[in-house]
Amino acid sequence: TRNIDLAVVAGDGIGTEVVEQGLTVLDAALAGSDVKISTTELDLGARRWHATGETLTDADLARIKEHDAILLGAIGDPSVPSGVLERGLLLKLRFALDHYVNLRPGKLYQGVTSPLADPGEVDFVVVREGTEGPYVGNGGSVRTGTPHEIATEVSVNTAFGVERVVRDAFARAQARPRKHLTLVHKHNVLVHAGHLWRRTVEAVNADFPDVTTDYLHVDAATIFLTTNPSRFDVIVTDNLFGDIITDQAAAITGGIGLAASANINPDRTAPSMFEPVHGSAPDIAGQGKADPTATVLSVSLLLDHLGLADAAAKVEAAVAADLAERGSRVRSTAEVGRELAARVSG
Amino acid sequence: TRNIDLAVVAGDGIGTEVVEQGLTVLDAALAGSDVKISTTELDLGARRWHATGETLTDADLARIKEHDAILLGAIGDPSVPSGVLERGLLLKLRFALDHYVNLRPGKLYQGVTSPLADPGEVDFVVVREGTEGPYVGNGGSVRTGTPHEIATEVSVNTAFGVERVVRDAFARAQARPRKHLTLVHKHNVLVHAGHLWRRTVEAVNADFPDVTTDYLHVDAATIFLTTNPSRFDVIVTDNLFGDIITDQAAAITGGIGLAASANINPDRTAPSMFEPVHGSAPDIAGQGKADPTATVLSVSLLLDHLGLADAAAKVEAAVAADLAERGSRVRSTAEVGRELAARVSG
Ligand SMILES: CC(C)[C@H](C(=O)O)[C@@H](O)C(=O)O
Ligand SMILES: CC(C)[C@H](C(=O)O)[C@@H](O)C(=O)O
Repeated sequence: TRNIDLAVVAGDGIGTEVVEQGLTVLDAALAGSDVKISTTELDLGARRWHATGETLTDADLARIKEHDAILLGAIGDPSVPSGVLERGLLLKLRFALDHYVNLRPGKLYQGVTSPLADPGEVDFVVVREGTEGPYVGNGGSVRTGTPHEIATEVSVNTAFGVERVVRDAFARAQARPRKHLTLVHKHNVLVHAGHLWRRTVEAVNADFPDVTTDYLHVDAATIFLTTNPSRFDVIVTDNLFGDIITDQAAAITGGIGLAASANINPDRTAPSMFEPVHGSAPDIAGQGKADPTATVLSVSLLLDHLGLADAAAKVEAAVAADLAERGSRVRSTAEVGRELAARVSG
Repeated sequence: TRNIDLAVVAGDGIGTEVVEQGLTVLDAALAGSDVKISTTELDLGARRWHATGETLTDADLARIKEHDAILLGAIGDPSVPSGVLERGLLLKLRFALDHYVNLRPGKLYQGVTSPLADPGEVDFVVVREGTEGPYVGNGGSVRTGTPHEIATEVSVNTAFGVERVVRDAFARAQARPRKHLTLVHKHNVLVHAGHLWRRTVEAVNADFPDVTTDYLHVDAATIFLTTNPSRFDVIVTDNLFGDIITDQAAAITGGIGLAASANINPDRTAPSMFEPVHGSAPDIAGQGKADPTATVLSVSLLLDHLGLADAAAKVEAAVAADLAERGSRVRSTAEVGRELAARVSG
């Protein structure tokens, strides 16, 4: 038997509801196998912050590091000042656990209606850098709140950080039929960061000669995501551009209710983290209305990361079958989870 | 008679072709009026840079400043290293002439097919800040080209700079039927810049009490631009986010072939500049294939800025009528220009 220790951060709002279904499907996927999952639930998020003022303590982090992976629901609540939980918890996890590959598939499943009139076949994956760029928190302000305020945000990009994520993206492109990698940046304006990215893609390409590459400015990328999303295979981009285009990618492939993500530490020096792209959606929390599909697809990415490719494929196939047949049927969060689990088992 | 001195920067690629038609329509719009246009053509762009190594000299700038407005075609060519003309010419103009309001309408005209299946009525305007943010050029790199390279880009935001553009956006919102302003930023991550923007919108709202406001993170804005673009009335946002979402806005309203823009100095301390959102499109340059409509719509914005609201409306109406009837007819750049001019005159 193989034991997998999973840290579960259900978090806020619909986080609890969707994670519950994610775990149900995970259990179904591993039933009858020799893999045992044990879960540790961590009380992190808005409730904990209100109660204790803590977002993520050193002790929390140490505890999380003892696990093989993390399943996260959603973090954030309007009652908490903007940035507190994002910077103090979600991004702190990504940075502290060195999740430098933020993997976000953009796939239009059969049966899913895209808001695009003619989307074509959409099946790409965004490799978003997760530990650098404008997300590093190197900003500040002086004369704050006065007419003379100056606020800065510094995007930090290192050869080390860019190269490792570009390498990962090339490897993913090489493993796919089309073997194509698109760099998205804005090197005509952000010349220093942009040229580092560009030079790195050119250099690493030498080690992946069968992968073709192209380049798009981020503004042009939003156009192609609208007019011709099937042109994309693998996209590699910085933390902020990746944030933006993956939400757009989710929108064109059926919405954030379906968009999965993996925050991966490819060197496995710390646990990777799997989470739906959507947020805590306080407006529908506690009502059993949230679609757990994005979380279930994140569970598929989790299984894949743990080397359980068959189980991962079973979960994705269950989702694909469910989407192909769901039509306009309204189901509760638990019903969707139960039906997905049944498909995985059956 | 009123004399208007127009500086014309045709620039590179299709720039020359579309500007020619823009001027034809401009002439038609003012024919028979007491407004006389005299134009000065400036040789700026890739050709000049190759010949002289110059992008925009102090003398060029001084000369441009003697004019009432600038009509710009497109700047950029693959033969020039990325960033040279963008930073050294286009952005230098925007910064030197204090174009702090970069105005970009997002309007779906009748007869134009949107790539969205169900776009609804789309009629918003983006007020993109034009002189601050990540565009200031405050970046650099050390150990460049080595495995220890660090490249930074600094987004600079001032209370002065944010307030003036926010004020302009509120005034525009107040003048529109819906009177709604959406701030787009990413204040949960870029907390310092983001909170400055947020506080400013709240403060300036006091002077425009009849304008309603809301806030969207830039990633969420890309979703709504896909699923519900008719929700937007006026958007105010920073330089980089504005760059990104206005290309997406162009995509959903028929493409950058139709997207106009105005780089406005509302204090009129220097000439404002009017340019299509598209680039120089070297792949189709010189073939008479480029659609001059975006330039013609930019001419409409120019007329409006010069206080010639009737002429501006005539030009926009001509474009609207042309779009409503154009169908799939293929016309050359000059044919489109000629037909638009005829409509304006007729
Ligand atoms: C909540 C926020 C900090 C986060 C991000 O910007 O990365 C989210 O938008 C995401 O994409 O996971
Ligand atoms: C060419 C480039 C510098 C420019 C920008 O980023 O502003 C363009 O994309 C635009 O939107 O006008």
